[in-house]
Amino acid sequence: MNKYTVTFYPENKKVEVERGTTILSAAISAHIHLNSACGGDGVCGRCKVVVKSGTVHSETSGKITCEERKLGVYLACQALIESNIEVEIPAESRLDLGNLSKEELELRLRDVYSKAEDITQAMPSLGAALFSHAPLVTKFCFQLPKPNFDDKISDLERVYRAVEDKIGEKPIQTGLSNIRHLGELLRASDWKITVAVSQKGPVAEIVSIEPQDRSDKNYGFAFDIGTTTISAQLVDLNKQKILGTKAAYNRQATFGSDVISRIVYSKAQDGLEKLHHAVIDVANEMIETFTEEHGIDLNDVTAVSVAGNTTMIHLLLRVDPTYIRQEPYVPTANYFPAVKAAEAGIKINPHGLLFCLSGVASYVGADITAGVVACDIHQSKDLSLLIDIGTNGEIALGYSDWIISCAASAGPAFEGSGMSSGLRATRGAIQEVRIKPGSFDVEYVTIGGDKPRGICGSGYIDLICELFKHGILDKNGKLNREIKSKRLRNGSLGHEFVVVFEKESGIDADIVITDSDLDNLKRAKAAIYSGIAILVRHMDIDFKDIKKIFIAGGFGTSLNIESAVGIGLIPDVDRHKYIFVGNSSLAGARQALLSCQASLTSDEVAKNITYFELSTDPEYMDEYMAAMFFPHTDIKRFPSVKYV
Amino acid sequence: MNKYTVTFYPENKKVEVERGTTILSAAISAHIHLNSACGGDGVCGRCKVVVKSGTVHSETSGKITCEERKLGVYLACQALIESNIEVEIPAESRLDLGNLSKEELELRLRDVYSKAEDITQAMPSLGAALFSHAPLVTKFCFQLPKPNFDDKISDLERVYRAVEDKIGEKPIQTGLSNIRHLGELLRASDWKITVAVSQKGPVAEIVSIEPQDRSDKNYGFAFDIGTTTISAQLVDLNKQKILGTKAAYNRQATFGSDVISRIVYSKAQDGLEKLHHAVIDVANEMIETFTEEHGIDLNDVTAVSVAGNTTMIHLLLRVDPTYIRQEPYVPTANYFPAVKAAEAGIKINPHGLLFCLSGVASYVGADITAGVVACDIHQSKDLSLLIDIGTNGEIALGYSDWIISCAASAGPAFEGSGMSSGLRATRGAIQEVRIKPGSFDVEYVTIGGDKPRGICGSGYIDLICELFKHGILDKNGKLNREIKSKRLRNGSLGHEFVVVFEKESGIDADIVITDSDLDNLKRAKAAIYSGIAILVRHMDIDFKDIKKIFIAGGFGTSLNIESAVGIGLIPDVDRHKYIFVGNSSLAGARQALLSCQASLTSDEVAKNITYFELSTDPEYMDEYMAAMFFPHTDIKRFPSVKYV
Repeated sequence: MNKYTVTFYPENKKVEVERGTTILSAAISAHIHLNSACGGDGVCGRCKVVVKSGTVHSETSGKITCEERKLGVYLACQALIESNIEVEIPAESRLDLGNLSKEELELRLRDVYSKAEDITQAMPSLGAALFSHAPLVTKFCFQLPKPNFDDKISDLERVYRAVEDKIGEKPIQTGLSNIRHLGELLRASDWKITVAVSQKGPVAEIVSIEPQDRSDKNYGFAFDIGTTTISAQLVDLNKQKILGTKAAYNRQATFGSDVISRIVYSKAQDGLEKLHHAVIDVANEMIETFTEEHGIDLNDVTAVSVAGNTTMIHLLLRVDPTYIRQEPYVPTANYFPAVKAAEAGIKINPHGLLFCLSGVASYVGADITAGVVACDIHQSKDLSLLIDIGTNGEIALGYSDWIISCAASAGPAFEGSGMSSGLRATRGAIQEVRIKPGSFDVEYVTIGGDKPRGICGSGYIDLICELFKHGILDKNGKLNREIKSKRLRNGSLGHEFVVVFEKESGIDADIVITDSDLDNLKRAKAAIYSGIAILVRHMDIDFKDIKKIFIAGGFGTSLNIESAVGIGLIPDVDRHKYIFVGNSSLAGARQALLSCQASLTSDEVAKNITYFELSTDPEYMDEYMAAMFFPHTDIKRFPSVKYV
Repeated sequence: MNKYTVTFYPENKKVEVERGTTILSAAISAHIHLNSACGGDGVCGRCKVVVKSGTVHSETSGKITCEERKLGVYLACQALIESNIEVEIPAESRLDLGNLSKEELELRLRDVYSKAEDITQAMPSLGAALFSHAPLVTKFCFQLPKPNFDDKISDLERVYRAVEDKIGEKPIQTGLSNIRHLGELLRASDWKITVAVSQKGPVAEIVSIEPQDRSDKNYGFAFDIGTTTISAQLVDLNKQKILGTKAAYNRQATFGSDVISRIVYSKAQDGLEKLHHAVIDVANEMIETFTEEHGIDLNDVTAVSVAGNTTMIHLLLRVDPTYIRQEPYVPTANYFPAVKAAEAGIKINPHGLLFCLSGVASYVGADITAGVVACDIHQSKDLSLLIDIGTNGEIALGYSDWIISCAASAGPAFEGSGMSSGLRATRGAIQEVRIKPGSFDVEYVTIGGDKPRGICGSGYIDLICELFKHGILDKNGKLNREIKSKRLRNGSLGHEFVVVFEKESGIDADIVITDSDLDNLKRAKAAIYSGIAILVRHMDIDFKDIKKIFIAGGFGTSLNIESAVGIGLIPDVDRHKYIFVGNSSLAGARQALLSCQASLTSDEVAKNITYFELSTDPEYMDEYMAAMFFPHTDIKRFPSVKYV
């Protein structure tokens, strides 16, 4: 008897596994997704679970304290199942946004990603208004004339003739599946049909032919597939209306928190399949929930438009991403053909199409193309800068005449990963920090107003700036050991500053920032700033020539520009130039969904964006080293930062 | 126990079936295909088998004589299995050409279908020479430059760039399956690859990408899917060389001998599926045998080009043919998109393409389009007539300025079906007949020189002409009852003329022609002649204005023109105008395979051929009735027929 039953609480979900299976694998089988930033290597310490009964075997881990061990806490990725067991999964070890309450979900959408509607309202140029309305898939209703001896062209030609009348002279094609039972369909519907047509390419493609008039029901989804978060919008393609926006965690996080660890995992047995299914499952659940909520028939969803970084697009389409991380960092494709959504496993109308926006390079993906188009940089007369701060800082600089881009390896510090008290921007994460002069007492704001459970990116930026401002941190990023305060101490992980003591916190521990955390954050901010600086230098311009700076990505509006400038993350220029654009990747995907012209434009833009390779640029290392101070070695670059 | 074992001899093939199954169904399960012209209705009497042991239940049938019944002969379609049985299948009840000897196969190809090579040699205009050599799928070998930091476009763009260099500026697309593992393929092959490209449409399609140089190995198949016979040619697409020609019976004959009975059968449970698989199985066996014989890797077969009548093309692609036989006779499609051969079930390279030539109407199919193009009628200055005599007589008349076509329902008499001693043009079929004056003794030639087993189409035409010439037949088509001869008698099926007595024949019966047979043949010839006449009349021209008359189809060179004119089947014009073109449908399919230009031309030609509907034309019935005499009511139309 080598099979054991694992029961997960609080779901009370049971799953049968073989002896020696890890709890992490068992949880995946039960469709419960755990945090696992390191991809199951036992080093990130994110997948802690409590074994309530039964036996597991696990080597001792530095990530588990003696007290935790006594309470039955294990790393799910290291604990091998040796009997029937019962496992409790704490909220902080979970990945599924689907399991969060509705309020928490909305909160996340509000605080982490600006709603696209807001973008449209705030900045008309970020809506689809600039492009003509011609969705990637359009539905036409036709009452075809019945054939008779004087008009006896074939059924298919009859459909083509009607479509041609609508779209003009353009070659038309369709697949066998639309032809096989066309004869019966036409006659059973008394020659009244709805034809869904995709007009993006040089050949118009008949996507589907349905009986009767369904032309008023035509929906699509825009997706931004982020490494951490997947955002989706349900769009009424006829009315150009966003019916709703949702976000969910990318369950690929079970296999690693950043693109590199996922590319590595893709080489494991069935690795690529698992990564592919992890993202597809989330997308399908979002589509299903969305359509159910709005009472929409899945068959009326005809198109899906996707932006995301290059690795995410590869994994979505189950394309081997191996060479993205091997010199000279060449992806399999930056431009993908439109495919049947079903071919990628996306469940909409069985004939529906999936369009992926085009990327620029391995580390400047379709998310940046989408952002550039959404921010209108490609046709702007003003020199603009787009900064998307995620695990990679993706940066684009330019205007209508040229655009140059680069990717700075910031690492996941700003996403709370690899940090002693780091947390993603979820409920209970500290996102704003003020330190009182003298007492060094800390005032903070958490997401959702909950008791603090950790610190997220914008919280860290605020915190560093405050520590620096109050002399607790020197320009090298070291905590000042001279200062006498109960908050400054030598902890188990080195010198540290206590942000929140255990008694106030929502976890059974102090919330701290350590020298090592500070080093991570310094490297992250240096990578991004020097990326921007090198593009500016390469194009032989000056920071002050930049007219608009778009801040996109996970930080959203929670980023404090003053603090970000204060620590040297972003250039010290007129604050009016900074514009928060939230999820511009999603906005770009939506534009493409609603307009073939936008979709074609983004393909063109992607081709025309020059990619600048930082890793081989001799000057980049100098810039990077110069940025390894708070705010910068060359303080003339940060004239407004007076408290140095 | 309701399962019984049926053993078929001489194959010694066993199959287990349920009680009450017909022997015909059991034979299909055992992949043994029987003649069944009526589709299993028990009326054609073609599927006779001998039950050697065991019990079957069957109603008595007029098709089985008392002697036969005593010998255990049953109609396979009517005999219900009630125990384990052993069944012997006589050669004449078989359908599979695959079971014939090699010599017999070659013979069939020689006598029934002119080899395409011969056509090319005899008439350069029927070869592919007129069209530029650019196969439907072309292979290119590329040694791609390796990516480096100065040239780091994606893998797919690298392939596109190379293809563009070859084919010029044209949009390129490919499917996900060619992209998913492209990265590994390129690197494992050290960037030397072979790309198969289809350039027919406005977008060039990358069909497949293979490692290393396979560009010298590129093969295709041209098919003519006839109602009775499937012909195929294996073609070296690089060298423009025909490597061989094969023919096999269309196993759909198990479900009915003509297109109408097959369309009816397609509505039966799984009917369409079965008809589809019957033709696909034959095609795949031909492809497999052919490639094995020539040591060709199936993966190097990249394209299949198919001509055939409209119903055959529908069934090949598993497209519902129902409406072909319902007024106003509209097919689902006359033009089909190129599809993956695999999608239709054709086993070549998994990415390989299947192209079907375009048809004109329900009863003037791609076979006629192919014939028109192969005979160069579409760009000829000479008014030409193409006659394809099969179950339907398909006729096209015209030249470079216009082409008009019609379909005359000749019925299967010329294919030996429904005739008391009828036989398809197989070994032992009488194909030439001479009657000695006075004695009325009959001299005949059989296919293969075997003992006669029946009479095929060309034999019947000769026979009628001879009977007529010697006064044995009157102009109404009645046997002269005044003549005293042992050969003229009242048989069990009415008045008849004995062509071969049993003692000389290869079957245990006399070979005869009856009044009823003659009536069938008269109707068949009248249908074809009046079809030709009505087109000529409709275009307000004269028979003598026609400069070339191409005779295509099953008769091949075995048709005696003098006899055919003599019975009034074809116009009485200068015999030099008659040109035998054999299987011009196959020739056209091959041209399209070797030249995108030819393929596009045939699409254009199909669109421009006017279809003339005989069934609704008031003058057609008059012409038909006038042709219901030998040779014709209006004997001025046949001035050279002196013996009337």
